[in-house]
Amino acid sequence: VTPHLHGIEAGSSLKDHLTITANADELRVFCARVLKRFGVPSDDAEIASDILIESDLRGIDSHGIAHLSRYVYDFQHGVACPQPNIEIVEKSPVTAVVDGGGGFGPVVAYKAMELAISKAKNNYLGFVAVRNSNHYGIAGYYTMMAVKHDMIGIATTNAKPNVLPTFGRSGVLGTNPISIAVPTDRERPFVLDMATSAVAFGKLEMSRRSEKPIPLGWATDETGQPTNDASLVFRNLDKQKGGGLLPLGGAGEEFGGHKGYGLALAVEIFSSLLSGAAPSFRTYPKDSGGNPLPADIGHFFGVIRIDGFRSITEFKIGMDDLIHHIRNSSKLEGTDRIYIHGEKESEMTERRKREGIPVPSEVATDLRKIAKKLAIALPF
Amino acid sequence: VTPHLHGIEAGSSLKDHLTITANADELRVFCARVLKRFGVPSDDAEIASDILIESDLRGIDSHGIAHLSRYVYDFQHGVACPQPNIEIVEKSPVTAVVDGGGGFGPVVAYKAMELAISKAKNNYLGFVAVRNSNHYGIAGYYTMMAVKHDMIGIATTNAKPNVLPTFGRSGVLGTNPISIAVPTDRERPFVLDMATSAVAFGKLEMSRRSEKPIPLGWATDETGQPTNDASLVFRNLDKQKGGGLLPLGGAGEEFGGHKGYGLALAVEIFSSLLSGAAPSFRTYPKDSGGNPLPADIGHFFGVIRIDGFRSITEFKIGMDDLIHHIRNSSKLEGTDRIYIHGEKESEMTERRKREGIPVPSEVATDLRKIAKKLAIALPF
Repeated sequence: VTPHLHGIEAGSSLKDHLTITANADELRVFCARVLKRFGVPSDDAEIASDILIESDLRGIDSHGIAHLSRYVYDFQHGVACPQPNIEIVEKSPVTAVVDGGGGFGPVVAYKAMELAISKAKNNYLGFVAVRNSNHYGIAGYYTMMAVKHDMIGIATTNAKPNVLPTFGRSGVLGTNPISIAVPTDRERPFVLDMATSAVAFGKLEMSRRSEKPIPLGWATDETGQPTNDASLVFRNLDKQKGGGLLPLGGAGEEFGGHKGYGLALAVEIFSSLLSGAAPSFRTYPKDSGGNPLPADIGHFFGVIRIDGFRSITEFKIGMDDLIHHIRNSSKLEGTDRIYIHGEKESEMTERRKREGIPVPSEVATDLRKIAKKLAIALPF
Repeated sequence: VTPHLHGIEAGSSLKDHLTITANADELRVFCARVLKRFGVPSDDAEIASDILIESDLRGIDSHGIAHLSRYVYDFQHGVACPQPNIEIVEKSPVTAVVDGGGGFGPVVAYKAMELAISKAKNNYLGFVAVRNSNHYGIAGYYTMMAVKHDMIGIATTNAKPNVLPTFGRSGVLGTNPISIAVPTDRERPFVLDMATSAVAFGKLEMSRRSEKPIPLGWATDETGQPTNDASLVFRNLDKQKGGGLLPLGGAGEEFGGHKGYGLALAVEIFSSLLSGAAPSFRTYPKDSGGNPLPADIGHFFGVIRIDGFRSITEFKIGMDDLIHHIRNSSKLEGTDRIYIHGEKESEMTERRKREGIPVPSEVATDLRKIAKKLAIALPF
C-alpha cells in the first residue's frame, strides 16, 4: 500500500513516473466493490475482478485496472449490461453457442470457457462461440483456465476495428488476439497471448502517453503510410479519418503483413461468423441519436483433452523437453536468454505479488474519481 | 505442351527465364507414373499427384512438381516408404492419432484429413494428429478438402528445423505452416496457408536461384544477425553452422517476432506433441553411419461442422458480407485492390489451367533425369 516513486529517466516527463503501487489483493477487492455498485452480482464481480487484476499481475497493464473506467462507462451508457440474460444454445455434445445478453465481457467469457471445459471433459473436445458480449480483458486468462484442468485452451475475440488489411487504408479488423495455453510437467505452462496486429493497442497507447515516437511499422497515418506519431493515429481513429494499426508482419507483403491480416480474418471468422456476433467493423454501434448501443463483440473458446490423442504424462514430459531444447539452443550474439511464451508474464506475476502493481498517475486519477463518486475506499 | 520463353527482365540471368510450360493434366499423369514406379499403389499415386499439381496450379511452385526429385530421393533412401502400414488409433468419436508408418507425406495426410472429415460429419468436430509421416506438400490442399464438404478445415505440420526462435541463433523450429479454409456463399473460399516464418522457405530458395539480395528481416547469418545473402543462409543451414529463417514479425520483439515464434511453437505442439512425432529439431534423423532414417514429421488436422454453431446458410452469407466489406474498404494510396486469402491462388489456378504450368530450367533438368532413368515420357 506504500506509494512509491519510480525512477525518472532523463528526458521523460515527470507525470508518467509519479506511479503509485497498490497491493494486488486490495486492488481486487476495490475492483469487485465498484462492479457490485454498478449492479454486477457478487459472484460475477469476484470473477471479473480476478480477471482484471490477473492482467495487471502479468504485466498487461492496459487490460487490468486501467480498463475499469472504460467498463464503468460501458455500464453507465448501456454498452454492457451488469445482469445479463446469458443464454446457452447447445448444438452438440462438443459445440455450443452462447448469447451473452449484452453482458459484461469477462463474466460472459468466463462462463463460456467453463462450458467449453465441461464439454471437453465429457467428450474430449469443447468448442463454444459467443455473440452479444463485450471486451473480455486478456485472452490468456481463459486459456489458462483449461490448463488448470490439464487441457489445452484456445481463445479468440474480435474488437473495435482499429487494424488495416494489407493494402488497406482504414481499420476494418480488430486487434483480434489469439491465445493458446498448454500444460507442461515441471515447466511453466506455455501461454501464447498475442494481438494479430504488429503491436498491441495498449503499447500504442503507452507510446502516446509518453509522447515517444513509435517505430515505423506499427501503424499508419490516414493515407495508409507508416507513421511514427501515435497521437495522430489515435486522433484519426477517433474521427474515423483512416489509418490504424498494421497487421503482424507490417505494411505490404514483403515481410508477411498478409499473414497477420489473414490471422486477423481467421479470428474474425471464429469469433463473429460462427457465433453470429457483429464483425469488428460493426461492433460498438450507435443509435440514430449517436448514443452507444450494446457492443455485440464475439469470442471463441476451444478446449482439447490431451488424452484424446496421447497419454497426458508423455505429452507433458514432451512439452518440458521441447522447452528445454529451445531455451538451451544457441543465442543471438549479445543476448543471453530465449524466452518461452508465458515465462515473462509468470515472472512478472511473482514480482508484482511481492512488490505491488504499479498504477500510473492517469489511471490513479480515474480510480480516485470513481472511488469518490461511489464512496469506496481506495487501496492506495 | 508448347515450350515457351518467358520475358527476360533487364539484369536478370538468362538461365532462370528459359522456363518451359507444361499442361497440368499431362504433368499430373507424369507425376503419378513416376510415383507408381517407386512402388506407390495406383490410388495413392493419383492422390499424391493431384496434391502436387494443385500446388503448381495455385502458384506455390516450391511444393509442386519441383519437389518431385526430393520425394524420389526420400523413396530411394528409405526416408519415405511407398507402401506404408498406416495405423489409425481411435481415441474418441472426435479425436484420433494416425501413425503414418513412415509413408509418403501427401498420402498419409490425405487419409488423415479424410478421417477428420468423417469424424466431423458424424460428431460435429474431427481432430486428427499424425506421427511418423513425411513432407506433405501444401497445407491448403487438406483444408480445402473440408471446404468441399461445407466445413472449416485446419491443417498444420512441422518441418526441418530452419527457423530461429526470438533471440536464437540456430534453427530449432520448422517453417511450421498453418492453413485454415472456410466455405463461403458466392465468393471464393477463404484459404489461409502461411508459413509462420517471415517468409516461406520456397521464396528464399527462389532468391538464391536468382542470386538476388533478400530483404533484411527474412533470415540471419550464423551469428544471428539479419543478412541479405540467401546463399549464405543455405550454406549455413546445410552445415548446421547456425542462422536460418526469422519468424513472422522478424528479429527481436519490436515488430512482434515473438508472435511468429509463438505461432511456430503452437504448431509444433499440435503437430508433434499431440501425435508423438519428433519435434522439428529431431526430424530427419540419421543412423550412426550417417544414412537417413524415416523423417518422423508430424501433422495436425481439424474439421469443424458449421451447424455445430450456426445455420450454414447464415454463416456463408455472413462470409460473403465480410469479404465484400473488407475488399471494398478504402485502399492505401497507390494501390487498387485488397485481396482475400485464396483469391490470388484461385486466379492463378484459372490462368495456369489455361496457359500451362511454368517449369523452371533447373526443375526441368531434374525431371528429364528422372524420366530418362525410368523411361517415362515427359510432358514437355
